[in-house]
Amino acid sequence: MTSPLRPGATIGILGGGQLGRMLALAAARLGFDTAVLTPRTDAPDSRVSAFSIVAPYTDDKALEALAGVSDVVTFEFENVPASALEKLAALGVPVAPGPRALAHTQDRVDEKTFLNAAGCPTVAFAAIEAASQIAPALAELGGPALLKTRREGYDGKGQAWVKAAADAEAAFAAIGGKPAILEARAAFVRELSVIAARSRDGTVACYPVGENRHDGGILHFTRAPAPGADRVQAAAEDIARRILDGLDYVGVLGVELFEMEDGGLLVNEVAPRVHNSGHWTQDGARCDQFEQHIRAVAGWPLGDTSALFETEMQNLLGSEVETWPKVVAEPDARLHLYGKGDIRPGRKMGHVNRLLRPLAR
Amino acid sequence: MTSPLRPGATIGILGGGQLGRMLALAAARLGFDTAVLTPRTDAPDSRVSAFSIVAPYTDDKALEALAGVSDVVTFEFENVPASALEKLAALGVPVAPGPRALAHTQDRVDEKTFLNAAGCPTVAFAAIEAASQIAPALAELGGPALLKTRREGYDGKGQAWVKAAADAEAAFAAIGGKPAILEARAAFVRELSVIAARSRDGTVACYPVGENRHDGGILHFTRAPAPGADRVQAAAEDIARRILDGLDYVGVLGVELFEMEDGGLLVNEVAPRVHNSGHWTQDGARCDQFEQHIRAVAGWPLGDTSALFETEMQNLLGSEVETWPKVVAEPDARLHLYGKGDIRPGRKMGHVNRLLRPLAR
Repeated sequence: MTSPLRPGATIGILGGGQLGRMLALAAARLGFDTAVLTPRTDAPDSRVSAFSIVAPYTDDKALEALAGVSDVVTFEFENVPASALEKLAALGVPVAPGPRALAHTQDRVDEKTFLNAAGCPTVAFAAIEAASQIAPALAELGGPALLKTRREGYDGKGQAWVKAAADAEAAFAAIGGKPAILEARAAFVRELSVIAARSRDGTVACYPVGENRHDGGILHFTRAPAPGADRVQAAAEDIARRILDGLDYVGVLGVELFEMEDGGLLVNEVAPRVHNSGHWTQDGARCDQFEQHIRAVAGWPLGDTSALFETEMQNLLGSEVETWPKVVAEPDARLHLYGKGDIRPGRKMGHVNRLLRPLAR
Repeated sequence: MTSPLRPGATIGILGGGQLGRMLALAAARLGFDTAVLTPRTDAPDSRVSAFSIVAPYTDDKALEALAGVSDVVTFEFENVPASALEKLAALGVPVAPGPRALAHTQDRVDEKTFLNAAGCPTVAFAAIEAASQIAPALAELGGPALLKTRREGYDGKGQAWVKAAADAEAAFAAIGGKPAILEARAAFVRELSVIAARSRDGTVACYPVGENRHDGGILHFTRAPAPGADRVQAAAEDIARRILDGLDYVGVLGVELFEMEDGGLLVNEVAPRVHNSGHWTQDGARCDQFEQHIRAVAGWPLGDTSALFETEMQNLLGSEVETWPKVVAEPDARLHLYGKGDIRPGRKMGHVNRLLRPLAR
């Protein structure tokens, strides 16, 4: 794709969740149509898209149909099989971000190896293929350490703490005995994240760093700009730029960070997509992360990432969504619901952005 | 409908244009599905809606299908036949605004008669059934006066100026010889509008008054809050409240106003729907007019109407839409395109909201 995509073109989206829904809404605002491919029936994003294909990501006919209507294809979650992107590319449809972003972020060992090589510090780690490898790795990393599956797993799923060598067998069994990574514990003082974008011409733009609060492994609150963000903004942007350039990335990407006692930053995780901790930008920044991603994949110039408001994003998890009548009565709260019918504990049903304070120029 | 509509419910929309599209996008953000009935294929709003029915508004089967999927039905333009709303109401689906709003606004003579009775001043006018009635009416109103069809006509269509009695035949022919209204010329200093909403419980909320600039009868720019809005805000809100209460209205309504030399306001026209001069609220107000309309018809509390930014809205008319690459390079411009393929002179293809100045509390 050499020239910017014209309004009226169609953007394909792999994935059927709320991130796809918010991408589709942002695309619509810019005059684009969207086409969704997802195995889910009645997906939140299909219901606001002009085209909807319900099929597995490995279904060649479905991928051909998507390629047939799409001028460019992107994805809303990182566990799309790389083969799907390769198939689309082979069909001649541009895919952004490219397969390289997935290759380096779908596997936690590969991701940390890539990050360290790119000059981005992480916790120390060891690849684990068998329970017997855990004890020696633990001796080197120090305990307690966190055992995670190399692939998949999110929101705290597929993880187990290993306090001592005696826990090895049980921990390995708890994560399903799959290829794993053992990570040294990060003695961080808080969790931050930076949402960054890279355009087709290599321009990078970063949002102000946000401060995240997780509950039970699931993001619950993001406050942005993070209190004291000025201290860490430049370092976070440097990290984001190394990752984006290293992946030759096009689109929006989220980088979860640990802020250490000495003020240094470690990269916890990279998400090659729009990110939950960037939802505050919908109401608090000049150009939100969803529009930013659409701009990038369409070959448009990136939007302004500066904050208009100090904003707090609250995820509405599970039955918290039932508080919507209170939320809509707050003058400075903006409600975003995902159209999910089935309320389950911890499920992301929607979010609220609360404008705390204007940050006008 | 007695209790607020729950997220996940479906809102039916009569009409296939950009106002419906922006209503559908706002509804999606709040977790609703939308269902569109329009005679147009490939309508801007169908393409972002879960359900789409392409049929004339007078098609009983189509209205039954819409009623079957919708928990409430609204409309995005005022020339929906009243019979369609009556049919939907007879099928037991709540309709908001109600048929009364259409009855009083589809006919210019009925509208001005209603307005004057409700205590809202307008220009003097006379009903015209035949060309022969124009000369005596002109003698009474003073010339030049504006001859308009009683029904339909928008953006300056279906209008002709009558300077002298000798113009009567030609002017009547120019508007198609249809039942008409002859309106005295308003010696206004500027055109303003107020966007107002009324909830199911009768609460009224008004946005800051905007100042409008038309080109060739088509709205081109709105600046809001209008310079010197404080002088006219209370009077504009009084007018809006009289109209909303008089129509027992539920939803958002636009009132076009003339500001006279003495600072007084005359009502030019009432639009029983979201209004082009309210598009600035999408980026300049706490709760935008599209969400506000959805809130009202869903039985939710109204959102906060205060301005966050002094904002200028520019309609992208016809080939002006080709300026989008420049617009997206402006940091404080927000682009909104409607997904219309066919560029025609004067056609509303999109708009830009430019944030001019923060108005933070």
